[in-house]
Amino acid sequence: MKWKVRVTVRLKEGLNDPEGRVIGNALRSLGYTVENLRVPKYFEFELESDKPEEEVEGMCKKLLANPLIHDYEYSIEPVS
Amino acid sequence: MKWKVRVTVRLKEGLNDPEGRVIGNALRSLGYTVENLRVPKYFEFELESDKPEEEVEGMCKKLLANPLIHDYEYSIEPVS
Repeated sequence: MKWKVRVTVRLKEGLNDPEGRVIGNALRSLGYTVENLRVPKYFEFELESDKPEEEVEGMCKKLLANPLIHDYEYSIEPVS
Repeated sequence: MKWKVRVTVRLKEGLNDPEGRVIGNALRSLGYTVENLRVPKYFEFELESDKPEEEVEGMCKKLLANPLIHDYEYSIEPVS
């Protein structure tokens, strides 16, 4: 069966996000009142699998996230 | 009023996403049947504003996206 998967990988709370800081500063310099801008990694893909949750967990642990510094979450929905 | 904003910036359909291709290949080499892996840009932040939609549109057009190559979408919800 085929699934649409979306994975979001965030730096753990308290870790520095330099890219986010730069973009936040740029938006503030344009006059916007922006706070706590973060730039998580975000992946979208289709997966052919009979056990999608197990496989997506495996992908996160093996490749997409580093558990030392990242938290991750995902959504999995069937492709019609 | 304060808002939680999430902006997703995707390369337009048909444009090459080299980072996505590399990650897709890596996942396939681990044995996963993955297709069409894309790595959109994703931003999360808090915004203090009386006209959040107008301001987020402005941010996308001025800084977060390049309308020549990107499509973007966003969600805006009140922070309690």
